[in-house]
Amino acid sequence: MRAVIPFKKSNAKSRLSALLTDKEREEFAMAMLSDVAATLVRSGCFDVVDVLSTSIIDLEGANIVLADSGLNEALNEYLGKMSSHSLDEPVLIIMADIPLVSVKNIRDITSCESDIAIAPGRMGGTNAIFIRDPSRFHVDYYGASFLKHIEIAQKDGLSVEVFDSFNLSTDVDEVADLAEVLLHGKGRAAGCLKKLGFALAENGGRVGVKRM
Amino acid sequence: MRAVIPFKKSNAKSRLSALLTDKEREEFAMAMLSDVAATLVRSGCFDVVDVLSTSIIDLEGANIVLADSGLNEALNEYLGKMSSHSLDEPVLIIMADIPLVSVKNIRDITSCESDIAIAPGRMGGTNAIFIRDPSRFHVDYYGASFLKHIEIAQKDGLSVEVFDSFNLSTDVDEVADLAEVLLHGKGRAAGCLKKLGFALAENGGRVGVKRM
Repeated sequence: MRAVIPFKKSNAKSRLSALLTDKEREEFAMAMLSDVAATLVRSGCFDVVDVLSTSIIDLEGANIVLADSGLNEALNEYLGKMSSHSLDEPVLIIMADIPLVSVKNIRDITSCESDIAIAPGRMGGTNAIFIRDPSRFHVDYYGASFLKHIEIAQKDGLSVEVFDSFNLSTDVDEVADLAEVLLHGKGRAAGCLKKLGFALAENGGRVGVKRM
Repeated sequence: MRAVIPFKKSNAKSRLSALLTDKEREEFAMAMLSDVAATLVRSGCFDVVDVLSTSIIDLEGANIVLADSGLNEALNEYLGKMSSHSLDEPVLIIMADIPLVSVKNIRDITSCESDIAIAPGRMGGTNAIFIRDPSRFHVDYYGASFLKHIEIAQKDGLSVEVFDSFNLSTDVDEVADLAEVLLHGKGRAAGCLKKLGFALAENGGRVGVKRM
């Protein structure tokens, strides 16, 4: 079984630019990727963990595959190559910005019996998708990709399961999302935020973050 | 085993007032409560499903308990009464605004082996909490209640488990949250929004809602 994480380091996490410099955003994005990749490796579920990256990066335990096209093109090319090399093994596509993912999450989603298992992100995204037979599926990210992926699967006669996980649903894009990393994170992403001076802050009965 | 849902009908869901009238907000809040209560009943896990309500409401399958104090006071009084009547059975406290909750979620959280199981809401909330022995716990909602509840449990020597669920984490407070109900909901809350003219809308590659 394979896992693949698409990743873009340059101008990563632009919606955090109000609070973080370019360099800090790259550092934080790398810390999140590192948490995700380390969890995949620790799960023991995969023969190969590939990172489909737009630039050369240094990451322990993962295999860096350079890709300079868009997200959908890069991933569909990846799935196509697996098929053409007769690598008809299952693949898990997982986003680089979900640092709360646990080893149990990975073992559970890759044990789903359906042809396709989708872990939704908030607001209709697809944060992880397990594809039993890559030759029979293609991805279509952006917008309500959760609905699009269900439709693609059903059109191809594939069975689909929705994988219910708060950890996997928590993609970190906005300033408010940093609170989730501080509340629940135990890995490098949480460590990176703390090192950069972030802490939880109460704000009128609600939780937010402040930078000291 | 018991379940209790705290509920306030009057001026419910005030953060939706930009898009919904008072009456519509009450109707939507009742639809969400109805989804949660029906799921609890269907799970078959509980002898009693109580709704701790600030006003008399009509709800099938649930027992309405009037309470006019604040959330923490009402729930702690409820837990105290259980203890004083020697009802030392486990209790699940679950919020009324998480309409995506499934029967499987309920069966799983009430099967947790720890003394306390907490399903976090987004931004540090507590959307469901399973308490094995109500005489040994009290609640403290608002702010980062997730962290407060873990601290209360640990101070009392109780074991704690975090219950990982996107469904349970999705409390519906803000306009943006309505998209989650339209994307994933299959019950009365989703039906209510559709009846009121809401639909998903793409907005610059992101998903939102529009009202027709």
